[in-house]
Amino acid sequence: MTIRLPITVRYAETDAMGVVHHASYVPWLEAARVEWLGQVGLPYVDVERRGLAFAVIELGLTYRNPARFGDIVEVETWLVEVGSRVLRYQYRLWRGEVLLCEGFTRHLCQEFSGKALRIPTDLLGVLEANLQRV
Amino acid sequence: MTIRLPITVRYAETDAMGVVHHASYVPWLEAARVEWLGQVGLPYVDVERRGLAFAVIELGLTYRNPARFGDIVEVETWLVEVGSRVLRYQYRLWRGEVLLCEGFTRHLCQEFSGKALRIPTDLLGVLEANLQRV
Amino acid sequence: MTIRLPITVRYAETDAMGVVHHASYVPWLEAARVEWLGQVGLPYVDVERRGLAFAVIELGLTYRNPARFGDIVEVETWLVEVGSRVLRYQYRLWRGEVLLCEGFTRHLCQEFSGKALRIPTDLLGVLEANLQRV
Amino acid sequence: MTIRLPITVRYAETDAMGVVHHASYVPWLEAARVEWLGQVGLPYVDVERRGLAFAVIELGLTYRNPARFGDIVEVETWLVEVGSRVLRYQYRLWRGEVLLCEGFTRHLCQEFSGKALRIPTDLLGVLEANLQRV
Repeated sequence: MTIRLPITVRYAETDAMGVVHHASYVPWLEAARVEWLGQVGLPYVDVERRGLAFAVIELGLTYRNPARFGDIVEVETWLVEVGSRVLRYQYRLWRGEVLLCEGFTRHLCQEFSGKALRIPTDLLGVLEANLQRV
Repeated sequence: MTIRLPITVRYAETDAMGVVHHASYVPWLEAARVEWLGQVGLPYVDVERRGLAFAVIELGLTYRNPARFGDIVEVETWLVEVGSRVLRYQYRLWRGEVLLCEGFTRHLCQEFSGKALRIPTDLLGVLEANLQRV
Repeated sequence: MTIRLPITVRYAETDAMGVVHHASYVPWLEAARVEWLGQVGLPYVDVERRGLAFAVIELGLTYRNPARFGDIVEVETWLVEVGSRVLRYQYRLWRGEVLLCEGFTRHLCQEFSGKALRIPTDLLGVLEANLQRV
Repeated sequence: MTIRLPITVRYAETDAMGVVHHASYVPWLEAARVEWLGQVGLPYVDVERRGLAFAVIELGLTYRNPARFGDIVEVETWLVEVGSRVLRYQYRLWRGEVLLCEGFTRHLCQEFSGKALRIPTDLLGVLEANLQRV
């Protein structure tokens, strides 16, 4: 299961170099994995209602080409790894055929208190069914 | 009681016009009133520990001169109005003698649930003692 | 000409009160007037290509009900005023039938250097044709 | 040369989990390396005046403990690598003795047009003199 979430670059996301600021990509990844979860049938609002969170514990991004105001950036998103407590998503960001950015995030399943938890079996089943290792 | 909180402009707060984006000022006002509360002896973390919030219900800003990366902006902040449930802060933002921006915020005292509350008497006393109407 | 731009609330736009932070609405207004300009045939990227900007010189927002993660917020946007150098947009933000927020922005037509300019006649014509005073 | 830039967490930097949002750390790293450059005698505004930028081309962060509103976070920052065109900074973020986050950024020296450039000899000399490999 791979999705592509289109993001219309906001002026507020640019910086004085005239391009999108490198921090602005991070909420896009989040929006994309929220969309992914919704599409596999696990809306993140429901995850939260169960008292769970997939907190970000690691983040890596490589910037290849700048995005600009006016661009529509597609955030290609897929789940590459599921453990008993941990998820890993991979991302490629595109403007048409141009690769702008690549990256990943790792997540820990936890209570709102911050305590790590095993991913409940029903969620784990859905996540594993939608894994895409490459 | 008027404070002046210095803010060092972050590159992330600029936009493609080469100046600070107009939305970037809003968290500065917040940082400044948090500092004001600390200085009058009501740290906002303590306000929150009591289950209270001073939620923003109105915001107005007039932009006079752009701020730029590298500037140190001073956020002059004072409390102009206190009611039984409502606060109003006023702000002037300066780079040296240059007025960059003026504005205000209004706040409603509420529970975390969002329910409006009377400001507790002890807080009200401190706020009124530090009012500055002009 | 009134548009309604749907915005899916991002987790990054919330704060520790569990609702959307008041500063997060400001880029939404911007996204909505960019969409408005596109729909009346004046894409903002083209405005910029002519060396012009509609810089924000004033901003006012009244918050009526909190937006939350998972909400889809519609930003109703229309142009209420056009002068030789100045524009004023009005906004109402909705979650379904619930009014979340109302506000306005005022803009000054300027060069990238910051110098104020008369709005060029062809742009002015399009803007006036799409005014909606109420 | 290692610096520690103190950052007072802003309410706007938190999210609905009640902690600092993972994207909020990214501008802190930037503020810290700007401070580092200032302290070694290469204010970034001067770098920009020469038509140069140290654009971020890679970013990695590992989150160990959450930061919260009210925290003062110290961003320990040092330059671990200098090439003819590339820089790498390393970061550790602390609240007192508690390690909150670790990470790095890589930068490419470029013109404002985006074209990669050799770092000018005088800058390179200062950077190398302030390297700290571990």
